[in-house]
Amino acid sequence: MSAKLKTQVAILMGSDTDLPVMMSCVRILEEFGVAYDIKVLSAHRTPTETVRYVKQAPGKGIRVFVAAAGGAAHLAGVIAGHTTYPVIGVPIESPSLKGLDSLLSTVQMPGGIPVGTMAIGKSGAKNAGIFAVEILALSNPTLAKKLGQYKKSMAQSVLAKNKSIKKKCRQY
Amino acid sequence: MSAKLKTQVAILMGSDTDLPVMMSCVRILEEFGVAYDIKVLSAHRTPTETVRYVKQAPGKGIRVFVAAAGGAAHLAGVIAGHTTYPVIGVPIESPSLKGLDSLLSTVQMPGGIPVGTMAIGKSGAKNAGIFAVEILALSNPTLAKKLGQYKKSMAQSVLAKNKSIKKKCRQY
Amino acid sequence: MSAKLKTQVAILMGSDTDLPVMMSCVRILEEFGVAYDIKVLSAHRTPTETVRYVKQAPGKGIRVFVAAAGGAAHLAGVIAGHTTYPVIGVPIESPSLKGLDSLLSTVQMPGGIPVGTMAIGKSGAKNAGIFAVEILALSNPTLAKKLGQYKKSMAQSVLAKNKSIKKKCRQY
Amino acid sequence: MSAKLKTQVAILMGSDTDLPVMMSCVRILEEFGVAYDIKVLSAHRTPTETVRYVKQAPGKGIRVFVAAAGGAAHLAGVIAGHTTYPVIGVPIESPSLKGLDSLLSTVQMPGGIPVGTMAIGKSGAKNAGIFAVEILALSNPTLAKKLGQYKKSMAQSVLAKNKSIKKKCRQY
Amino acid sequence: MSAKLKTQVAILMGSDTDLPVMMSCVRILEEFGVAYDIKVLSAHRTPTETVRYVKQAPGKGIRVFVAAAGGAAHLAGVIAGHTTYPVIGVPIESPSLKGLDSLLSTVQMPGGIPVGTMAIGKSGAKNAGIFAVEILALSNPTLAKKLGQYKKSMAQSVLAKNKSIKKKCRQY
Amino acid sequence: MSAKLKTQVAILMGSDTDLPVMMSCVRILEEFGVAYDIKVLSAHRTPTETVRYVKQAPGKGIRVFVAAAGGAAHLAGVIAGHTTYPVIGVPIESPSLKGLDSLLSTVQMPGGIPVGTMAIGKSGAKNAGIFAVEILALSNPTLAKKLGQYKKSMAQSVLAKNKSIKKKCRQY
Amino acid sequence: MSAKLKTQVAILMGSDTDLPVMMSCVRILEEFGVAYDIKVLSAHRTPTETVRYVKQAPGKGIRVFVAAAGGAAHLAGVIAGHTTYPVIGVPIESPSLKGLDSLLSTVQMPGGIPVGTMAIGKSGAKNAGIFAVEILALSNPTLAKKLGQYKKSMAQSVLAKNKSIKKKCRQY
Amino acid sequence: MSAKLKTQVAILMGSDTDLPVMMSCVRILEEFGVAYDIKVLSAHRTPTETVRYVKQAPGKGIRVFVAAAGGAAHLAGVIAGHTTYPVIGVPIESPSLKGLDSLLSTVQMPGGIPVGTMAIGKSGAKNAGIFAVEILALSNPTLAKKLGQYKKSMAQSVLAKNKSIKKKCRQY
Repeated sequence: MSAKLKTQVAILMGSDTDLPVMMSCVRILEEFGVAYDIKVLSAHRTPTETVRYVKQAPGKGIRVFVAAAGGAAHLAGVIAGHTTYPVIGVPIESPSLKGLDSLLSTVQMPGGIPVGTMAIGKSGAKNAGIFAVEILALSNPTLAKKLGQYKKSMAQSVLAKNKSIKKKCRQY
Repeated sequence: MSAKLKTQVAILMGSDTDLPVMMSCVRILEEFGVAYDIKVLSAHRTPTETVRYVKQAPGKGIRVFVAAAGGAAHLAGVIAGHTTYPVIGVPIESPSLKGLDSLLSTVQMPGGIPVGTMAIGKSGAKNAGIFAVEILALSNPTLAKKLGQYKKSMAQSVLAKNKSIKKKCRQY
Repeated sequence: MSAKLKTQVAILMGSDTDLPVMMSCVRILEEFGVAYDIKVLSAHRTPTETVRYVKQAPGKGIRVFVAAAGGAAHLAGVIAGHTTYPVIGVPIESPSLKGLDSLLSTVQMPGGIPVGTMAIGKSGAKNAGIFAVEILALSNPTLAKKLGQYKKSMAQSVLAKNKSIKKKCRQY
Repeated sequence: MSAKLKTQVAILMGSDTDLPVMMSCVRILEEFGVAYDIKVLSAHRTPTETVRYVKQAPGKGIRVFVAAAGGAAHLAGVIAGHTTYPVIGVPIESPSLKGLDSLLSTVQMPGGIPVGTMAIGKSGAKNAGIFAVEILALSNPTLAKKLGQYKKSMAQSVLAKNKSIKKKCRQY
Repeated sequence: MSAKLKTQVAILMGSDTDLPVMMSCVRILEEFGVAYDIKVLSAHRTPTETVRYVKQAPGKGIRVFVAAAGGAAHLAGVIAGHTTYPVIGVPIESPSLKGLDSLLSTVQMPGGIPVGTMAIGKSGAKNAGIFAVEILALSNPTLAKKLGQYKKSMAQSVLAKNKSIKKKCRQY
Repeated sequence: MSAKLKTQVAILMGSDTDLPVMMSCVRILEEFGVAYDIKVLSAHRTPTETVRYVKQAPGKGIRVFVAAAGGAAHLAGVIAGHTTYPVIGVPIESPSLKGLDSLLSTVQMPGGIPVGTMAIGKSGAKNAGIFAVEILALSNPTLAKKLGQYKKSMAQSVLAKNKSIKKKCRQY
Repeated sequence: MSAKLKTQVAILMGSDTDLPVMMSCVRILEEFGVAYDIKVLSAHRTPTETVRYVKQAPGKGIRVFVAAAGGAAHLAGVIAGHTTYPVIGVPIESPSLKGLDSLLSTVQMPGGIPVGTMAIGKSGAKNAGIFAVEILALSNPTLAKKLGQYKKSMAQSVLAKNKSIKKKCRQY
Repeated sequence: MSAKLKTQVAILMGSDTDLPVMMSCVRILEEFGVAYDIKVLSAHRTPTETVRYVKQAPGKGIRVFVAAAGGAAHLAGVIAGHTTYPVIGVPIESPSLKGLDSLLSTVQMPGGIPVGTMAIGKSGAKNAGIFAVEILALSNPTLAKKLGQYKKSMAQSVLAKNKSIKKKCRQY
């Protein structure tokens, strides 16, 4: 059980203003009982500390990195340059270009340095959590089982919407 | 050793014209000695066979899916809808919009159904292979070690370019 | 008359949050007296139920599908993969990319699997309803006549705006 | 049988340079035995003749319009303004913006005047033909049956690619 | 003098919701004493009336058309197809794509049918008015003189901002 | 007649590499018998000479400016800043962004300084010539008549394509 | 010391509405004790005064220009055409296209006339100030030292966020 | 004189395939007699060596960095994170998105870490060289004088094109 609580996922954010978005990732990890570490570490403003963290993370049990950044979003790529553990990128919506810059900066990585990129914003943050769980579940049957249940309950939740949909139509 | 040869990665392509691009993925898996299955299966033209394949894949040992498609690239998303194993998406360059459509169709997944998206085209195909290896390496120390060597040799290959760079400058 | 009330159009939405937009489609069908079925069914979260619905729909009288989804909007394409009845796609505006992703994911279908795509958002939802009526009107003279009247009254409504336009100018 | 040969689909192109692309539509209609009329008629250069053609088309048996244009692609919209028959739009790839302009000009129609828009270029042209057949098949069981066969043979053609895919991998 | 008051500019809008934007055009024409006609006429919803208006306009004195539309903005192009008088296009900001669709639909006209396109929204509406005046001023020395004064007063208005700019800096 | 030969249109290009594109403008002016001046003058590399030319142009008879530039295409805007004569902008296709940069830099002018913008590339260059003729024709009945004939012959040329279109279909 | 207070940076804005954004630049210069001049000068509305200012600026001590403009943002390019001092461009967010037009108009300069372009909006304005300081610091050891301290304090400020990040997580 | 030959500019490229583009920068520096160092160093593949180089560069005389990269172009940003010397970014055209990704990844830097970004491709590479010279010229009167001469000869070269432009027109 203590093994389960060992931090396995690191959530790094370029700025603490990314936290409201990344809470969608945090909640998934908590729902699945995956211990995580969460840090504000910038590829540009704290490059040395970022690299040090990435280098030391495996020693603490980290097996998957989730990196969130906006604009010229280099954080995921910089992490991927320093590790061979899977790096999941979450492009944060930026003020003017609405995350198109964040997405392209995160996903268009050169051959050799992959970043598994998620959708812009909250959906992406949530999916980063689920994707991390999917990766960990490959060697953790409990997580695998939970994922199956999660998928089923998600389907049921969608189907349940149909009970009231005709009534809702009449309400508009 | 037979375990090592058990197919662990499934490479699915929406069209056989995606093969030249996806060879960059194939070569990585072969280089790392990861056994793979490769199939042409379309989300739109063979939806039933695609779903059947995805459902049966874990039974054959598949633990990671790589899906390549262009245009309204739904293949990775459709696979992700039917599995809780990690799905890696490779957006293929499309004739008119050059893969912007493929990228957005692959990456902008709704909350609950993650696709780890790579860059458009060959770099993305190559990185899909490496990312799959990174995931498998979490429970395979041999792969983990090879990844470390791969990263080092990649760095050396870049640094080696510097020997001739000044000479090349004079040649232009 | 009972034949007229037989459901002929299926409106499927990827999420119940799409309902306010799709009400523009619902209202057109009600205005033209076309019976419809409306369901929340996701290409990704309820793929099995979605396919089952599409397969069974013709048996209930459905002749035209309207599919609304946002982001990596795969719903219309997935439906089109499982039917030879006309599928009309409505791209829903997405939070960050404002529906550009939804539009490209819906319209850029590969050869063989058409989706008749409408504009992003409410105009598209309304037009999906009208387009469905236009298709049904080919074998329903009553609908055809109503369409002619609708077009005329639309023109009159535009022209009527001109009575007060000069006065409005002075009000600004 | 003569009824089957009555022209039911009108293919209009803004320029004769669109013909190589629209041949993908022509071939589908010929494969399905749907008689068609094909014309070069521009929304801008021959507006009067375009409107006259659209007005007279139903009298000749036309039930579906396919309109292809590039750049500020107004042809489909102009046709839709003058008819209540279904109009299918094919955005042609343009020289500089590669059809993004053609797509947006075709699909972003205001409420009231739908254009069922297909993908940019050849895939879209092919799908315009299939979509027209899907519409006509609603009241033509022979066409409906052929569509089912077409879909099956399309799937078989995809699946057949898998026989040689591993061999092809070795050839690269 | 009565000649001066003869309507010389026609402002056509695809929808009366475009009026708040087009007031920037109206005000310029009123400031320069150029008589105008303003109409809501849609390329799609009132195509016949639009063409009739364009054909009859020169007889009423109209020498320049200003056309405002959003989304698949065909109005300016349709007018240009029916006249050899200068047509100025104003792309109206659209709900989802923010006028990129309106701009491309207006400006990317095929060879032979020019539309002098302005910026998206209010700046474009204002400039449409000024551009119309510039055209009319070629044969109207009074307007030409007013344009010179307008340009000077615009410069003075900008330069006047500098008196208080340092104070404003301190206020933030 | 000498009046007719007085140069009335100035074609300015940011670079002599724009000439092949701008020949489409030159040919229109020659076809209509409008005398023109053509110059390579850059907003950035020869700013002083550009302004001097613009200031002196009206004295030589110039009444309309056509400005062609690519990338950060400032030429038309800079000219418009120094004149109250109509300025027509032609965005030249740029190497990487294919003229999207040129288009936005030309058309998105601030309120007060209009540039009548044409399509990107050759169509835009041709239309710049026609638009200049349309402006000049307002006070030149001969040009106005020629424009009417040009429009008719353009329509006939489109309609003539229909004679061979069915044959062409069979040739593919 | 008086030398230090000599104005070395000129901040030019196309409109006084750009001031709230450019205050981020002003504050940096004040924080570093760099004297600046700030002016509203438009490339289009006050072209003559803009050029005069640029020509005279070096005589007053100006060594770096910062230019802010939106839409068809020509100001930085026009300045760069008249000086060989470094010009830093700040694209201001525009109403419809959100600064994509401003960015491309500023950055896509032709060979020979560089503009060092910053991000769209406030981040770009702030960075323009820092970049100007970096340039001046090359011959000013005091500024160089301050830059080092600024960078350190920026890192510390990021790292300090980590103290409360876990608590913040619990607050959502 | 030896001081003049001390390397003052570092040109770093993410890949040696960027060299043909960056030769436009090299040639400018050679033309101005500015000594430079040129290296292939990747933000992702050789992150440690890149940081080491940046840290040691000032000790060798480097005062300005030029960084060229394509796709998720992080090189300039990573350098800027480790230095307070001016960093000039050159976005390299990428295979699918043609440098839009490279541009946004380079220019959209967060507040605090400026990168002076140039145009995509060769024009940008050339301008990076000139911009570096402009910066160095602030404390080097010889370079300043050369810049003035360069600007003049550039203008003369443009003006010289006008001698043959009318002849060229006739040749087309």
